[in-house]
This record gives sequence, structure tokens and C-alpha cells, in this order.
Amino acid sequence: MRAAIYGGTGGPEVIRIEEVQRPVPGAGQVLVRVQAAGLNRADLLQRLGFYPAPSGAPANIPGLEFTGVAEELGEGVTAVEQGQRVFGITGGGAHAEFLVSHERLLVPVPQGLDTLQAAAVPESFITAYDALFNQAGVKPGEKVLVHAAGGGVGTALVQLARFAGCMVFTTTRTSRKLSRLAELGADVTIDSSQQDFAEVIAQQTHGTGVHVCIDFTGGSYLAQNLATLGINGRLVILGLLGGVKVPIDLETVLNKRLRIIATQLRGRPLEEKIAVTRQFADVVVPQIERGLLRSVIDRVFTLDHLPDAHRHMASNSGFGKIVISVEPGKQ
Amino acid sequence: MRAAIYGGTGGPEVIRIEEVQRPVPGAGQVLVRVQAAGLNRADLLQRLGFYPAPSGAPANIPGLEFTGVAEELGEGVTAVEQGQRVFGITGGGAHAEFLVSHERLLVPVPQGLDTLQAAAVPESFITAYDALFNQAGVKPGEKVLVHAAGGGVGTALVQLARFAGCMVFTTTRTSRKLSRLAELGADVTIDSSQQDFAEVIAQQTHGTGVHVCIDFTGGSYLAQNLATLGINGRLVILGLLGGVKVPIDLETVLNKRLRIIATQLRGRPLEEKIAVTRQFADVVVPQIERGLLRSVIDRVFTLDHLPDAHRHMASNSGFGKIVISVEPGKQ
Repeated sequence: MRAAIYGGTGGPEVIRIEEVQRPVPGAGQVLVRVQAAGLNRADLLQRLGFYPAPSGAPANIPGLEFTGVAEELGEGVTAVEQGQRVFGITGGGAHAEFLVSHERLLVPVPQGLDTLQAAAVPESFITAYDALFNQAGVKPGEKVLVHAAGGGVGTALVQLARFAGCMVFTTTRTSRKLSRLAELGADVTIDSSQQDFAEVIAQQTHGTGVHVCIDFTGGSYLAQNLATLGINGRLVILGLLGGVKVPIDLETVLNKRLRIIATQLRGRPLEEKIAVTRQFADVVVPQIERGLLRSVIDRVFTLDHLPDAHRHMASNSGFGKIVISVEPGKQ
Repeated sequence: MRAAIYGGTGGPEVIRIEEVQRPVPGAGQVLVRVQAAGLNRADLLQRLGFYPAPSGAPANIPGLEFTGVAEELGEGVTAVEQGQRVFGITGGGAHAEFLVSHERLLVPVPQGLDTLQAAAVPESFITAYDALFNQAGVKPGEKVLVHAAGGGVGTALVQLARFAGCMVFTTTRTSRKLSRLAELGADVTIDSSQQDFAEVIAQQTHGTGVHVCIDFTGGSYLAQNLATLGINGRLVILGLLGGVKVPIDLETVLNKRLRIIATQLRGRPLEEKIAVTRQFADVVVPQIERGLLRSVIDRVFTLDHLPDAHRHMASNSGFGKIVISVEPGKQ
């Protein structure tokens, strides 16, 4: 099969498309013929050598989410039928023509959802649902701040928070994304390259702040995030794109009785990944079927153009998900 | 009535015992004749000017927990009877002959518990129960690390964690407290003035660390606390005696998917204080009655000797709670 391979660490040029051995499904596993996959920040970090694949995932083949067709069932598989359209998350290996997955990590794709749309769903919506409801315990009516709201997870967070009855504050560093965030359901859109988001939120909330903040930057926004949270506020950290080691003012944390919750999907053990996947299948996918939530596609690249997809993601110019079309002859 | 008054900020010498107006119970409130009260670190911080009383509490009268007798009932009180022995927490005012409390913040004192024992219970056991079970969500079998385990809250934490089926790791900076912690139920006792607790725990747990750490120091132990937590570990910060602004390594926090939870009782609104008080009455006090949990008394001082009690607490030489006897002629 053809697969993307990281032939070292460095820029997008280390990515090669090679012919490699097709994986074989073990007991309880399914061989999936990948039709399309999502691109994630974690893929770029892995390429740079900062984010090695967890054990059990292909070490060199990138790709953390996919949609495809169940090609071959391993021994004892009962949850998936051969030929069924399925999508889901994986610890790696989705930027290839085939991958193997535990059957319980596969979710049937709703009929009305086409392949490219489906590829843009799993990682974003599982991460966003888990962050808002399992980690932060968001309640209807609460105020939620979403940073990098124009990204893949960001566009899912905005929709899910709004769907759950929250008032949604968003930041982006690209002014032309503001109107698109408002269309998605953001109540307040802030260009954080122009304005201090903590000041804008203090004004809009009469100083009471937000209940929940979902962050991907880590260090660079930590002080402002803690400042903008109200009493009993929760900060969920999903990434550290803005720095790792920074000072923290514990007095702010204690006086407001805050919670700082760090989480990520990829490092979790199988049983936890299955648990969030089943939750996604049970409560998120039906909303996509009903048309109440949708994946936002920025651009589609073929597998051969994966290096260009990496460059495009690094430019931060897109809005929504970057999708990699894997089927030969399709774009 | 006679009451302790902070006549300024500074050393124990700013404390004066004065004759002040007895408070009057409003609707839903009870006038309590205080028999004895606990002394807490927060009283020392308030004396130094770092921890002002919350609104609604007497601004200058210290004392955050008490046991006494319901002397007079305000309008509409139904939860407490006149003459009933009651104990509980308050935002301030317990180091005085009388205080007023909302009726729902008062808990009947079990028959077998004498006045001095009762005075040592509320703040420690409410704080400890809330930290372990409401904040950290401790489960039976988990490993729990308690710092400053020889203090009032510490001795309650050790007993409660052990009672709940946890394996209890403790630190103290005073070697002669080690055996007393073992008697209280600590499985592992570490003299943190002599040993790096994170190293000892790494060895004892074969590198897997603890599930929960309850901390009062904040800054000085932050890096070691994060290092000693295992995957999905929870750090509960109850105080900042060891520093406020320190660097935090967010990579450790994210890689292990940790939660940092800061909490304190005194700043909470009435309804939250009532909620934890009712939980204490419902599930902790019965264990004290059964003799399965007990307050540990270090020393008893009369109200007139409150400055000496402050000096004794600051010396860190005691083990368990310092109690202030308020009844005239009793010691």
C-alpha cells in the first residue's frame, strides 16, 4: 500500500510517499481502506520530532483520524460489518491507504455525510466534546472562551458550546476569520492580535469573567487565561503551542478556586479512547446526522501533496479542517 | 462579651482581648455561646494582614471554627433547638464568647465528644473531606500524598484517606512526628527536611507515582508535586505557605493529563458552605461517633493566652490541632 512516511525530523520535505506492507488485522481488529483523513497540529509536531507516536501505533506513518471502508475483519469482530463505512481516531497511521483499528474505535458514518466531510469530524469533535463536557463539565448558560477558534478543534468547540446553550467567546489572530466565527455561533469574536482578550471579556462580562476556557497555547496565554476566569472557573489545556515553562500566579488560582485541567487524546490507553469514541457515536454523531453540527473544511489535499498540506496548516491562514484525500484518482 | 480583636497587623502582640457588643441573631440565625474554638493557619495569615475576613464575617475578630451551645434562636429557626450543643465553621468571630451563625451551618455535637475534642473537628474534617472526595474525587485503593501531615488538616486527611481505603504517603519536616503519623494510619512517612519526597515516592511506587496530592505550600513544592503525580493525577492546593509565583512546567502537566485544583472554604458563598457542612454532618460526624475518626489535639490555650497559641502554631512544633478554650474559668 502507499503511505506517508516521516523519513526523519524537520520541515515538510522529510515527508515521503512510499510503498509499504499493508497491515494485518489481529483478533478484534478491522482493516480499514482509508478514503480520506484529517491533518492535525500533532502531525506537524511529530514531524518536528516533538510528539512521538504512542506504543501500538505505526511509528513513522502520520495521521490521527480517518474515514474509510471496513475491508477485512480480524478474528471475532462483531461490531463492524465488512464493507461498512466507518470513521474514527487512531494513534497514527491514517495517512496511508490502509490501517488497522480496534473494532470498538470505529463508528459508522451517517448516510448523508460524504467522505471529505466525514474525514474532518472525528478528532475535532471527540476532542471538543471531551474537553467541554468530560473535562470542564460545562453547563448550559455558562460562558466559554475558545482560543484559536478558527482551527479544526476550535470550529467544533464553538458549535458544541453553542449547541449546549453556552455563551461563546472566541479569539483568533486573523481578522477575516471573525465573521466566520460569528456565523458558526460565536457570541463574541475577538482579534487577539489587536486586542487584549482578557480586557474585552472583563468589559463584556462586567468583570465576572468566563466559566470555562479551552486553550491550545499553554504558556503564552496562561496568565491572561487565569485572569479572565471567574470564581470556580476551569482552564482546559489541550496543547502547548505557545510555550511550556512560564510563571504561574497561584494566588489568582487559589483566590478564585480555579481548576487547571490538562488533557490530550493520543496518549490515552485503548479503553479510554474507546470510551470517548462510544460517547461520540452515541451523542455527537446523531447531531451531525440531524444537521445541527457540521465539520468545517478548509482545504483538501491529495496524499501526494501532504507536504503542501503541512505548509498550509503552518501558515495559520485557513479556517476549519485540512483534509487529506487518500483514494487514488480522487481529489 | 469578651472577644479577641486584631488591633492592627503584625506579630501576636497585636491581639487584644476586649469587651465588645454581643452580636444579635437575625432571621434564620442562631446566637452560639462559644465554649471552645480551633486555631488555624488562616488566623495567623489574617493577623499578618494577608487574609482579610470575607464580607458578612466580623472584620477583626478571629476564629474560623467553634463548638458551643445554642443560646438564642433568631426568627424562623427550625434546624437547631435552644440549649443544643453545636459545632461548625464560620468566616470569622469564633475567638469570642458569642457568635452568630446561619442555622444550617450548625451541626449537633455527638454525645460522646467533649468540648475540647469537638472544637478541633469542624475546619479540619470539612476541609479534608471536601479536598479528598469533592475536589480530588479520591477512590478506594488510590495512593494519596499528604504534606504537612502533622497539622490539623493533615491529621484529618491521613485518617480520612486511610478510612476510604487509600494508601497514604505523608511528609513532615519534623522527624519526631513520623511515628505519630504512622500510628494515625500513614503507610509511608517521609521527613521532607532530610529526603526528597518525590524520590522516595518514585522508589516506593516503582515510578508510577501517586494519584492525588494534597498541598498547603503552593510554590515551593509545585515542581516536585507535579513530578510525583502519576497519569491522570490530581493536585489539590489548599494553601500557599511556601510561595505564590513560581515557574510551572506545562509539559509535565499535559503529558500526564494532570489536574490542578485550588480550593479553600472561607471564600465560598453561604450556600456552598452549607452544602459541605451538611455533607460533614451526614457522613463524617457518624464516623467520629463510631470512634473511627478522631480529632488530634496538640495543646489547649485559654482565650487570654491566644497570642501564645499563635506563637506555638508558628513554631511548627505541635502535632494536631491547637484549641482555644473560651469558657470563663475553664482550661
